[in-house]
Amino acid sequence: MLPDFSSFDTFRSLLAGAPGPDHQAMQAATARNGQLTKPPGALGRLEDLAIWYAGWRGEARPEITAPQVIVFAGNHGVTAQGVSAFPPEVTAQMVANFQQGGAAINQLARAAGARMDVLALELDRPTADFTQSPAMDEGECLAALQTGWQAVAPQSDLLVVGEMGIGNTTAAAAICTALYGGAAADWTGRGTGVDDGGLQLKTRVVAEGVSRQSAGARDGLDILARLGGREIAAMAGAIAAARALRIPVILDGFICGSAAACLQSAAPGALDHAVAGHQSDEAAHAALLQRLGKAPLLSLGLRLGEGSGAALAINILKSAVACHSGMATFGEAGVTDG
Amino acid sequence: MLPDFSSFDTFRSLLAGAPGPDHQAMQAATARNGQLTKPPGALGRLEDLAIWYAGWRGEARPEITAPQVIVFAGNHGVTAQGVSAFPPEVTAQMVANFQQGGAAINQLARAAGARMDVLALELDRPTADFTQSPAMDEGECLAALQTGWQAVAPQSDLLVVGEMGIGNTTAAAAICTALYGGAAADWTGRGTGVDDGGLQLKTRVVAEGVSRQSAGARDGLDILARLGGREIAAMAGAIAAARALRIPVILDGFICGSAAACLQSAAPGALDHAVAGHQSDEAAHAALLQRLGKAPLLSLGLRLGEGSGAALAINILKSAVACHSGMATFGEAGVTDG
Repeated sequence: MLPDFSSFDTFRSLLAGAPGPDHQAMQAATARNGQLTKPPGALGRLEDLAIWYAGWRGEARPEITAPQVIVFAGNHGVTAQGVSAFPPEVTAQMVANFQQGGAAINQLARAAGARMDVLALELDRPTADFTQSPAMDEGECLAALQTGWQAVAPQSDLLVVGEMGIGNTTAAAAICTALYGGAAADWTGRGTGVDDGGLQLKTRVVAEGVSRQSAGARDGLDILARLGGREIAAMAGAIAAARALRIPVILDGFICGSAAACLQSAAPGALDHAVAGHQSDEAAHAALLQRLGKAPLLSLGLRLGEGSGAALAINILKSAVACHSGMATFGEAGVTDG
Repeated sequence: MLPDFSSFDTFRSLLAGAPGPDHQAMQAATARNGQLTKPPGALGRLEDLAIWYAGWRGEARPEITAPQVIVFAGNHGVTAQGVSAFPPEVTAQMVANFQQGGAAINQLARAAGARMDVLALELDRPTADFTQSPAMDEGECLAALQTGWQAVAPQSDLLVVGEMGIGNTTAAAAICTALYGGAAADWTGRGTGVDDGGLQLKTRVVAEGVSRQSAGARDGLDILARLGGREIAAMAGAIAAARALRIPVILDGFICGSAAACLQSAAPGALDHAVAGHQSDEAAHAALLQRLGKAPLLSLGLRLGEGSGAALAINILKSAVACHSGMATFGEAGVTDG
C-alpha cells in the first residue's frame, strides 16, 4: 500500500520508521563465511558485502536474481543561467535514447542482468530557476518523491537509481553546499564538461541559489525541494522505498549522492541499506562520499550519471553473494582448514 | 601448431616475435568512441579499455562472448621450510574443490559468464626446495610453460589465469626479489595468513633462496625456473600464448603478477595485451603493479589467488566493450552533441 505522501512531515515519519537489517541472518551469514573454502578474510570486501546483503534480505544464503535499474529524468530551470555544456533539450533526447536502448546505461544494465525502467518527470515543466525562486514547492517535491517510490518493483532484490537532467550537477552542488556548508566552489564541478569560464559561472549560480533558498530550511527535504529537481527527488523516493522493502541499493555518483544526502539529513541511518557503487570523476564526489560515510566499490573515472557507475558495480555485489552462497565449506569439500 | 619449446632461447625468440595490436582497429575504435551518446571522456577508463581491447582483437566494434579462466596448480618443495599457514596437501584438496565447483573462482567465473579449466601440474612431484637447489631445471620449466601455452583455447576472446599452490607466495616473493632487487622483506607478505613469526621465517627463506639461486640468471626465464613453480610457469606460458593469439589478458594478483614479470623481463612489451584486474591485499602487490606499469581495475582487498580478482574484473571489461559496441552515436540517436 502506498504510504502517506501528504506532507514532508508524514514522509519524515516514514523514514524514521523504516526497518533495519535482520541481525540473525547477518550472524548466520557471518558464521557461514568463516567456514568457506578460503583463508579467513581472503575475499576482502566481498565478504562484508555478502554479509551486509544477507542482513538486508533476511537470508543467510541469499541470491541476487532480480536487480532493477531505474533512470529518472527531469529538467531544470537553472539551465537558463547557462550552467551546462549541453542544451536542455538533450534531456528528452536522451530519454528517447534510453527507451531505444542506445545509451551507456542500457548496455551496462544488460551486462549486469538487470531490468531497466525509464521515468521522465514532467520534462516540459522544468523546475523553477533557483536563483529566482524555490525549484519546487513541497507538493511538487512530494509528487516526485512518490513517483520514485512507486517505481521500485517490490520483487526486485537490488536497486540502482540513475538520472538524466541537463543542469542537474548544478542542483546537486547547491544541495551539497546547503547541507554541508563550505564554499560553493568546494561542491561545484564540471558536470558534462564546462570550461573554466563555465565553471566560474556555475559556481556563482550555485552560491546565489544557496544564499537565496537555504535560510530556514529544516533538513534535507526542504533543501531537496528548494534546490533539487524532480529526478533528484524521485531518486530519493526510490531509495526510501527500497529501504521499506529491504531491497539493498547501490548508489551512483554525485547527483545520486546528493539525493541520498537529503534522506540522510532527514533521517540519520536512512542509507544503511546502501553502498557506494563508485567514486566518480565529478570533483566533489569524493567529499560527498566521505560525508555519507561510504567507501566506493569502484573508481574508474566515470562521470556520466545515468546510474552507470552503480550498474557497473552490480556484478561486484552479485559475485560477492555468489561466492558466499555458492562456495563449499571446508567440511563439504574435505579441505584441511589451516 | 605448437611452437618450439626446446630451450629458453627458442621461447625468447617466440616472445620477441609476438604480434602487436592492430593500430587501424584502434583508430577506428577511437573515432567511434568520440561519436557515442555521452560527454567526451565521461566513461573514464571504460573508454580506454574498449579501445585497447579493439586493438588487440583487430575489430573496431568487438564483442566479448568467450572468456576463459584457467586455474593452474602446483606444489612447492619450499613448503618443507614451514612457510605457509596451510599444509601442502591443501593444493590437491583445492583442485578437487575446483573440479566440483565449490571454490570462489567457480562462482566468480560463472558470474562472469566464463568457461573455466583446471590444470594440476604434477602435484605429486613438488618443485625442489629452492633453499637447497633450483626449483626446476630448464626442461621442467619449459614443460610447464608448454602446458600453460596449450591450455589456452584459441577461440577464447579474453583470458584470466589463476593458481593454487601452497607455498607459492614464497616463490613469487623470491621471483620479485630476484628480478627487482631490494630486500626480501620488501616483497614478502603474509600469503594465506602467516603470523608475525611466520612472516619472519618466510622472509629469511626468500632471502636465502634468492641468494642461492639468482647469481648468473640471464633474465626472468632463468629466475622463473630457479625460484618459481610449475603453476607459475604455466601461467606465464598461457599469458604468452594469449599474446600469440591476440587474446587480451586480465592479470590477477601477486603470484600471477610474478609470472607476468618473468615474461616482461625476458621481452619488454610482452604484457602489452594485459591489464591488471585488481590490486590485492598481499603486501607487495602494489609495488609489483608499479614495476609492471599497470593500474588495477579493482581494489577490494582480495588476497585469495585462484584468479579471483581478475575474474571479478571480467565484467568490467565486458561492460566497457558492451558500451563501446552497443551504444548509439549522436547521429543515430538524434541527440544534440554539446
